Amino acid sequence: MWIENAWYVGCWSSEIKVKNITSRTILNLPMIFYRDLSGEVVAMEDRCCYRHAPLSKGKLEGDNIRCMYHGIKFDKFGKCTEIPGSDRIPKNMRVQTFPVIEKDGLVWIWVGDPKVANQKDIITCAFLDDVKWEYVEDYLYYQSDYRLIVDNLLDASHLNYVHENSIGSDPKTQVPTEVTRKDFGLHVEDFWKNDDPPPHHKKTGNFSGKVDRWNIYDWYIKGNLLILDSGSAPAGSEGHKGDRSDAIEFRHLSALTPETELTTHYYFAHTRNFSLQDKAMASNISKAVAEAFKEDKDIIEEQQKIINFDPDRKMLAKPSDGPLNWVRKKIKDYIVLEIQSLGNK
Amino acid sequence: MWIENAWYVGCWSSEIKVKNITSRTILNLPMIFYRDLSGEVVAMEDRCCYRHAPLSKGKLEGDNIRCMYHGIKFDKFGKCTEIPGSDRIPKNMRVQTFPVIEKDGLVWIWVGDPKVANQKDIITCAFLDDVKWEYVEDYLYYQSDYRLIVDNLLDASHLNYVHENSIGSDPKTQVPTEVTRKDFGLHVEDFWKNDDPPPHHKKTGNFSGKVDRWNIYDWYIKGNLLILDSGSAPAGSEGHKGDRSDAIEFRHLSALTPETELTTHYYFAHTRNFSLQDKAMASNISKAVAEAFKEDKDIIEEQQKIINFDPDRKMLAKPSDGPLNWVRKKIKDYIVLEIQSLGNK
Amino acid sequence: MWIENAWYVGCWSSEIKVKNITSRTILNLPMIFYRDLSGEVVAMEDRCCYRHAPLSKGKLEGDNIRCMYHGIKFDKFGKCTEIPGSDRIPKNMRVQTFPVIEKDGLVWIWVGDPKVANQKDIITCAFLDDVKWEYVEDYLYYQSDYRLIVDNLLDASHLNYVHENSIGSDPKTQVPTEVTRKDFGLHVEDFWKNDDPPPHHKKTGNFSGKVDRWNIYDWYIKGNLLILDSGSAPAGSEGHKGDRSDAIEFRHLSALTPETELTTHYYFAHTRNFSLQDKAMASNISKAVAEAFKEDKDIIEEQQKIINFDPDRKMLAKPSDGPLNWVRKKIKDYIVLEIQSLGNK
Repeated sequence: MWIENAWYVGCWSSEIKVKNITSRTILNLPMIFYRDLSGEVVAMEDRCCYRHAPLSKGKLEGDNIRCMYHGIKFDKFGKCTEIPGSDRIPKNMRVQTFPVIEKDGLVWIWVGDPKVANQKDIITCAFLDDVKWEYVEDYLYYQSDYRLIVDNLLDASHLNYVHENSIGSDPKTQVPTEVTRKDFGLHVEDFWKNDDPPPHHKKTGNFSGKVDRWNIYDWYIKGNLLILDSGSAPAGSEGHKGDRSDAIEFRHLSALTPETELTTHYYFAHTRNFSLQDKAMASNISKAVAEAFKEDKDIIEEQQKIINFDPDRKMLAKPSDGPLNWVRKKIKDYIVLEIQSLGNK
Repeated sequence: MWIENAWYVGCWSSEIKVKNITSRTILNLPMIFYRDLSGEVVAMEDRCCYRHAPLSKGKLEGDNIRCMYHGIKFDKFGKCTEIPGSDRIPKNMRVQTFPVIEKDGLVWIWVGDPKVANQKDIITCAFLDDVKWEYVEDYLYYQSDYRLIVDNLLDASHLNYVHENSIGSDPKTQVPTEVTRKDFGLHVEDFWKNDDPPPHHKKTGNFSGKVDRWNIYDWYIKGNLLILDSGSAPAGSEGHKGDRSDAIEFRHLSALTPETELTTHYYFAHTRNFSLQDKAMASNISKAVAEAFKEDKDIIEEQQKIINFDPDRKMLAKPSDGPLNWVRKKIKDYIVLEIQSLGNK
Repeated sequence: MWIENAWYVGCWSSEIKVKNITSRTILNLPMIFYRDLSGEVVAMEDRCCYRHAPLSKGKLEGDNIRCMYHGIKFDKFGKCTEIPGSDRIPKNMRVQTFPVIEKDGLVWIWVGDPKVANQKDIITCAFLDDVKWEYVEDYLYYQSDYRLIVDNLLDASHLNYVHENSIGSDPKTQVPTEVTRKDFGLHVEDFWKNDDPPPHHKKTGNFSGKVDRWNIYDWYIKGNLLILDSGSAPAGSEGHKGDRSDAIEFRHLSALTPETELTTHYYFAHTRNFSLQDKAMASNISKAVAEAFKEDKDIIEEQQKIINFDPDRKMLAKPSDGPLNWVRKKIKDYIVLEIQSLGNK
């Protein structure tokens, strides 16, 4: 159960190499990506329409792809252009292609109704395509429903438990979270005043004393995107809204793309705007983030196993779940609308 | 399909160590066991009621357990006592606990309707908690429906085939089995008169000639328990009902606890009342029993695989199946009653 | 979904050794094969009718088989002849046996309605039982629906793609395929005139120039059998219908026996009538064929995985699919007839 009419991250741009076919299952559809001769990305179902052999085992011929079972050739629009041994090509002989856009180092794909796909709806992650921000392209494969990861990302109350030995912070210094409901999802502001810098901020920012630090993020319901502005500045600078001249800053993207009902592609990047030439720091930050994310993955995959014993059991809410439940409800509402609109066709 | 309203063996007492969480799935419910500060065993569902994360990945805090996903804390009655980040605790915020009793070195658990759980219904296995009887705590994990193991335990006709090279005995010397139907299940008496002692009896009992030997057991339908009085005495002593002064004696427990529809926990102990200090003998007996039980497990797991091809195929009865079929029918009757009583609620 | 009323290849004769039980699942039925004292093959369900233990774990006693769970004995007609511990044998105590015929080095089995099983319907593969033809008995286990392999065998258009580096031939030299619909299935003639000999023909036939070569085969819908007459002769000899004196010739059997809905036994033999003493050649030919067949298996198993994502998706036909679709339709028609006839009982 997911929203079909949304732009999802299909893969990192860098994964689609010239003269190469990349295959990935997205929203339960096996898919291939490749570049045409002009370098534009093509997204096509990984299924020859003839006998359903995988096109990912096929061969690129210029802009076209040939299935290497019976040799049937399709152009980059999915239209069949050759059937070996047949002099005629049936009109319906085509493979489904999908709207796909390369932007900010990501490949965005639209699996839903192509008539409502609008390129302008793709969320901008400018920091991923800006020399002032440096990062490592990262990925985790989750054996869980994507919604369990949504829950995780939208509820900071897990930080001190799942991450008690890594990034957990002292709840006493935390100013209450400000959450605003938006058309697109949530805008969340977390602010820790006069706090000890977390170890990796201390190390990378060379802070000698206390800091003000912040996590400001937007959660986009369509596409399951978290875009974060995070950082630390010397205590008193009110860094997140005020003076960032002595701050260290991070931008972060987390993008959840359902693979199947019970598996999820998790793309993420934790970018920084300092020490850009320091490759070791890039690697250290990536390692620290990946380690913390691995802690989430561990508990969430265990959670999924428990859920599988009795998938219909209701989860109980806690008082601070308002925004979380609102997002869950919005997802459901969008899905219901999509199903109804299919029914009307 | 199993009886819910029954005391099942949940684990060996020794498996629940101080300041430690033991997890096990019982009747398709993932569960945790731990000891409170007074040493009493707590049995709780292995599922935080909030987001269904496993409590077995949590932390004990005195009598309480804290889920290490969002830090929600529950007391030993399953009542939520803390929700980090929330000032209020919803009344329904609780995890299910289960009636649990430690007795005779075993942890007995009641998964069914707690209103009808009565501690007095727990079958006594006094020999497991008596210095006059010595044993090794044993366990087998079965990839099969527990009912196939019930069949096995209640039909001695398999002994000469499954165990032809281990414990099979000469059918010619066997006095016909006496089976009595009881409220609780079956009372069975097997008696071999003037028989060669089985190799392990001969070795451990130092018999020079023939023996009278016996297997007297009770089968408890609720809980799937077999409690056996077994032994050998010099031929002519009519040992099982008469003179046991020169006999070697064993008491045995087999307890089958369904894990899921197709997997079973099998707890067993083969105790003796002689050579109590002889640790090597204890180990040898345990090894011999486990070896024979492994032979049962092998054929039963193969049987389950064949059944899986066509699970609805009827099994044909043989004339000696009366008691066996009666037990199967009683199990079914109890299950039907439980389902009906659920329907009346 | 398969035709039940047909003779299928159950195994190679050589697989059923004296005093040995061979087990195999055929049309979703676990089965055993063994030889009675006269050497005749017995085919019986691999399931004791009592508790459904596998007879393949049993023991042969002359013509009979004894289940090694409870010791129940069955004669070679499946009739129970002994129940240890019971003085009476219920009349219905029997295991299903199946019509089975050994012919041409193959064991043919009939799983459907035995009343319509007629030994005369078994297709003759005389070359498999003729000293003038030499071969290796071969087998592949497919993780796919057998119908995907039927498609493969009936559509030569895959040759140049799946086998582009092994047996693919130049389409320009191919005379159009002649396909004739028959009662039993298809008769197909492929003829390449003045073609380069394929590498393995060149090597084995010592051809110095061009050849005429042919593939003439019959496809039997019932049993999924392909029987092929194939060879090369010096160009101009019109070898397939004309002079075969300087030809090298092959006969081939491919037999597809469904194991389950999604797995298939594939028996095959590629026989030759030349260099009969040359064991190295036999092995080389077998290796070359097996290598090509492995290419088919690879793509077909990948195809099955794609189909599994959406098993109900329609496959689109291409213009040359007439014979293929006709075979698929005939299979379906036979299955529908069988289901209707079950309904009338």
